[in-house]
Order: sequence, then structure tokens, then C-alpha cells
Amino acid sequence: MSHTFIAGAGMVRFGKYPVDVTFEKLAAGAARSAMADAGAAVADIEAVYVGHVFGGPVAGQRVTAQLGLSGLPVSNHENYCASGATAIREAWVAITAGLYDIVLVIGAEKMTDRVSGGVMPDPTDLDAINGMVMAANHGMSARRYMYDHGATREQIAAVAVKNHAHSVHNPYAQYQRPISLREVLDARVIAEPLGLLDCSPISDGAAAVVLCSAKGLAALGHRSAPRIAGCALVSGSTVTSAASINAEDVSRRAAEQAWAITGIGPADVDVVEMHDCFTIAEIVRLEGLGVVPHGEGAKWTASGETSIGGKLPVNPSGGLLSRGHPVGATGVAQACELAWQLSDRAGDRQVEHAQVGLAYCKGGTVSGTDGGSVTVLLVHR
Amino acid sequence: MSHTFIAGAGMVRFGKYPVDVTFEKLAAGAARSAMADAGAAVADIEAVYVGHVFGGPVAGQRVTAQLGLSGLPVSNHENYCASGATAIREAWVAITAGLYDIVLVIGAEKMTDRVSGGVMPDPTDLDAINGMVMAANHGMSARRYMYDHGATREQIAAVAVKNHAHSVHNPYAQYQRPISLREVLDARVIAEPLGLLDCSPISDGAAAVVLCSAKGLAALGHRSAPRIAGCALVSGSTVTSAASINAEDVSRRAAEQAWAITGIGPADVDVVEMHDCFTIAEIVRLEGLGVVPHGEGAKWTASGETSIGGKLPVNPSGGLLSRGHPVGATGVAQACELAWQLSDRAGDRQVEHAQVGLAYCKGGTVSGTDGGSVTVLLVHR
Repeated sequence: MSHTFIAGAGMVRFGKYPVDVTFEKLAAGAARSAMADAGAAVADIEAVYVGHVFGGPVAGQRVTAQLGLSGLPVSNHENYCASGATAIREAWVAITAGLYDIVLVIGAEKMTDRVSGGVMPDPTDLDAINGMVMAANHGMSARRYMYDHGATREQIAAVAVKNHAHSVHNPYAQYQRPISLREVLDARVIAEPLGLLDCSPISDGAAAVVLCSAKGLAALGHRSAPRIAGCALVSGSTVTSAASINAEDVSRRAAEQAWAITGIGPADVDVVEMHDCFTIAEIVRLEGLGVVPHGEGAKWTASGETSIGGKLPVNPSGGLLSRGHPVGATGVAQACELAWQLSDRAGDRQVEHAQVGLAYCKGGTVSGTDGGSVTVLLVHR
Repeated sequence: MSHTFIAGAGMVRFGKYPVDVTFEKLAAGAARSAMADAGAAVADIEAVYVGHVFGGPVAGQRVTAQLGLSGLPVSNHENYCASGATAIREAWVAITAGLYDIVLVIGAEKMTDRVSGGVMPDPTDLDAINGMVMAANHGMSARRYMYDHGATREQIAAVAVKNHAHSVHNPYAQYQRPISLREVLDARVIAEPLGLLDCSPISDGAAAVVLCSAKGLAALGHRSAPRIAGCALVSGSTVTSAASINAEDVSRRAAEQAWAITGIGPADVDVVEMHDCFTIAEIVRLEGLGVVPHGEGAKWTASGETSIGGKLPVNPSGGLLSRGHPVGATGVAQACELAWQLSDRAGDRQVEHAQVGLAYCKGGTVSGTDGGSVTVLLVHR
């Protein structure tokens, strides 16, 4: 059993790129940046783990061939919006098993060429066929949350205001200007009560990390680096999904697995990168994890407790809402942000004195379950 | 570090199924069969690894929800025709790491709904755009092999005759009737000198195995089971691909990695499941692995040395040519065959006294490299 460290992190700025900026170019750009950050040469990398959804067959091998990393073990991992996080998890397992000392993990997606008007649900998803598409689901979640906890529309909208304020300081974010509460409230309605600025955008982008065993870390000349304490993975359950749209049983189970693997508890977490595909999702998932008290998430957000400087800063990167959401890249981008936060390299969005970071991804829906896949990654100094 | 055993294996018959026999149904059928074979109940399974290419996002979760396995860690693995083998490899790594004791691996594909006239190369593959599609590549490989080694068209065609003869005894094979040399030679030309019966078919199907640690094996009440000694994974190299179309550097490197991981050598191998997507591919890949002497593969085939009862039986299952080739399922089907062969459960296609089995998969092409991904799985009694 070996520990796993994040020796380097790199991204290309998330956004909308023209057709000739391909999946391969975005992914290779992030990989080069992470390798440079780690001080890792081509010859140092032993294996490559790639997360993507829309890149097509052997997408990772097309990227590694461009990087001069050809010939290595390359595996492609898909778990919808948790694909990048799943790739990190498999790499962590392989290092834990003692199979490798230095590996590259890449998450990438070129969405603007392929996706228009939002990611479509699977054609066999009976819930979606009957109208429960992503936005509708989260709109209902918001209404129920407001009813159950007396939360206001403004408190939910405050998630978007906060995350956009954070990413003003993130050079890799798709959006880097602050937005006002008024702008969120006045935006075009998507699924009542949620409007356009409550929804994460369609994005292109890539992120990469170099993961190492203790031996690999020393070989690259590092004395220390943020360490992956563990990564949980669960899928949605058919048993519990009917309880309430905001039951978040899948988040609770993922958190419990993460605490069990790592010995870290919810009170230890200092900074969170949360899968805020919609504003309300950030709130209910924080509560599902148990890092924010049940029913308090909206209030915490509105009063600044989840802002940088607050009790538990959430999405200092800007999150999916403002850093952007190239689906396969998101989980790896979260890991980049935690690596930078936990080595005091996050610039003007640094969370002071953060010791433990948590990243949460949720990927896909499956008819009759409370989600496709959920990952919880725990990283500490 | 824990050993990994194949506690159970199951398949649905490969073939062409109507639209209402979905990916999910095929995969769930194979999974139920493997779990029954292992004596594993739903509550015994700790995680699920799925290999597929065309199943769409979170395909594995759609299958596990049907099986009542919802809630578990599920990951989807893509490495084109080596996708199922890659899923097995990741499961083996996780058991080795001590993460799980009992896991389910599923490989599945529903191709007839999606693919017509052959699997299309990636639109960015420059070699393919210029005519080097799969069949053309293997046609050139055959011509070169005949030129270099004085092999005959008949010797190459003998691969198809042999594999169809083997799968007469495989109830899961797409084709279960013998074919004559004449039929192979007279079949419609696809890419000279190769005809239709030199090519693996478009198939639907699924296969599954239950993998266990020693602890998991005991918990399921088994005293012994075939053991996975290791699984190598490499990708094509840009450095060496120009040497010769039959250089098979990628096979050599995969084999070397497999021998290094396991301590098994080429002389120890008693039975091979080979990725015979085309007749000639079986020959050159056996030679690339070093289990058949360079330039001797065609002769060995024609003289029966790679038939059941010969020096090194290859594809007792019928291989891709005759068992069929639902791409994501193939690697797992190979593992099923090795599990049955190494526990004396292969019926009339049993290879007597086999102690060590090798399964080889090759997935995809990447422009300018000698392949996308290659796996070598070694299993022993």
C-alpha cells in the first residue's frame, strides 16, 4: 500500500473554442502543463488515465500519441460528469496497488462541437422521456427545498453570485467577471424557479494532474505535495430514491464511504469543490454530504459562510457554474483546484489555512435511481 | 497484495439480436449467469467494472440497476476492442490493492443496432482517411506475410477453418457449424487476399466474470478457482511502427510486460485466446507474443499445431472469427473461456492438461502508431 500525491496540476482555460481546437489539443495542453508543474518528463510517466464522455473510442491514445507518451498503458474512463473523477480514482487505486509510481490523469471534453442546448438524457431513460430532464429535476428540487426549509429564491441565486465572484480570480475559468443577484433573478427562465445563470454552461476544456507514490514524488525531486487520502465511488440506488427529491441518499452514501476509507470526518473539511451543475444542487449536495447542516445550505450561502473567508468555502474555483463544465474535465479540474489550495498556490482565491479539501462529482441519471455515479475525493496537505 | 481468482463465468450466446434485446438485457443476462456460476448473490458483489464502446454514457449503471446491484461503485471502461479486457484489468488492480474481495466484471455490446458494414475508423485518423481502414491494413499484412515467409493463402485461410471447427463445441458461439477451406477461399473478397470468412463478424453479446480475492473466494465457498496471474496493458508506439506492417512491436511489448508482471514465460502457455479479428491477425500476433516462432504461424495453423490437440491450441472458443466479436464483450468472453478451460469445464472443446492460459486483445488504431491498446491476460490453475 502506497500513499498517492498530487505532484503537479495543469489546465487549459475552460470556455468555447473553435472547431480546430480539438479534444486532443485541449487535453494535450492540460497534460503538458501538469507535467511541467510536476517537473515530470515524458520518460517519467508510467501510465495514463483519461476521463471523457464525448471524445470517441481510444480518445486517450490519440492524446498520448500527440504528447510523445505513446506505448504506455492508457485507459479511458466514462462515468458521465464524474468521468474525470473516476479516472483519478482508478489511478489512485493503481498507485495504491503498487503498480505505478508516476502516472498522468487527464480529463477533457470538447462539447461545443457536439452538444447544443444542453446534454441530452439517454433515450431509454423513462424519467427523462416523461419530462424529468436535468433542468426540470433541479427546478423541482429548488421548489421543494424552498417549501421544506423556508428558503428564498434569492438565497438559491446567491450560489451563482458567489461562484462567479470567486472565479474572477481564476485564470482558467470560463467566466471571470462578477455577476449581481439582480442578473441571476432576471435571467431567462429555464425551469422554474431556475434561470439561465442557475445552470452550468456548455464548455470545452481540459485538466490534468500528475499522481505519484512517495517513491515517485521523491524521484521527481519534491519534498512534499498534497496527498490523496482516498476517493469514494457509488452509484444511484433504486431502493431509496423515492423518499424525497432532496433526500440525497447517494451523496450521504458517497460521503460515508469516503469517511470510512480515509478516517477523515465532515468536520475536518476546510474547502469544498462541489458539483454545482445547478445552483440548488450545490446546496442540497453539501447537506447530503453532511458538511453543512440539513436545511441550512441556502442560509449559509446567502450569509457568506460558503464564500472564501466564510466558515466553509465552497467552489473557490468558481465551480461548474462559473469555471465552466466540460463534463469529462470537471473532476480533474476540481483536483487541480484542491492541489493549488492545499499548497498555497491559489492566488487571490486562496482559502487560508486549509488543511483538507473535498471534491464531489455526480455523473448521469439512470431511470428510477437517484443518480448514475457519485465520487467524493479527499485531499489533504 | 491479494491474489485474484475467477470464481464464476457467464455469457449470453453471441449473435445478431433484434432491437428489443437491448444492451442492458444482454449484459444483465451474462452477469446473472456469472453470478450463478460463482454462487454470488446480489449482496456479495462489492463493485462493478464494465467494458463497452457503443453503450452510451453510464451504460454500466443502467445494467446494474436492472440487476438490483444499484448503489455500488460502477465504472465504465473504453479501450475499443480491448474494452472488456481493460475492465478486467482495472478490477484485478482494485482487488490487488485490497479495495474489494468480490467484484463483477461485465463486457457487452449491442452492435447490430448501431454499426453497419464494419466498425468505422475515427474521422481524425489520417491513415484511415487515406484508405488504411482495418480490412485494408490486414490485407496488406497478409500479402507481406506471404512474401516474407513463403506462406500460402490456404495456410492463412486455415485459421478460419480451425476456429469454426472449434466453436462447433461452444454453445455461446455465434457460428456453430464447421466451414471448409474451399468456403473460405471462395468467399466474397473484402481486401485482397482476404475474403469475408477471414473477417470477424458484427455481433451482439455479453460476457461476465466474478473476480475474487482469496478471502472472497472462501466466502463464496470455493476451495479453488483459476487465478489471474496478471494483465498487461500497452498502447501503440509512434517510434517503431514504421519498421514493417508485421513488426508487431506492440504485441512484443505487451507480452514482455505480462511476463515481467507474472513471472510466467512464453514456453509456459498451454492455451491461447487470441484477438483474431482477421485470420492473418491471429498468426502475426502469436508470433509477436513469442509463443509461436517468427514466420512459423501459418505453417503451424495448417498442420494443426494451433488446433485443440496440437502443440499450442489457439482459440478453442472459436475466437472472434467464429464465437463472434461484440467488441466490448470480447475480452471478458476470452476470460470466460480461460476460466472454463482451466477448470476442466470446456466440454468437447477442452484442451487437455492446460495449466496456463493467455488472452490477447487489441483495440483501435491511432494514426501513426502501431495500435490503440493491447492487453495480455495470464490465467493459471
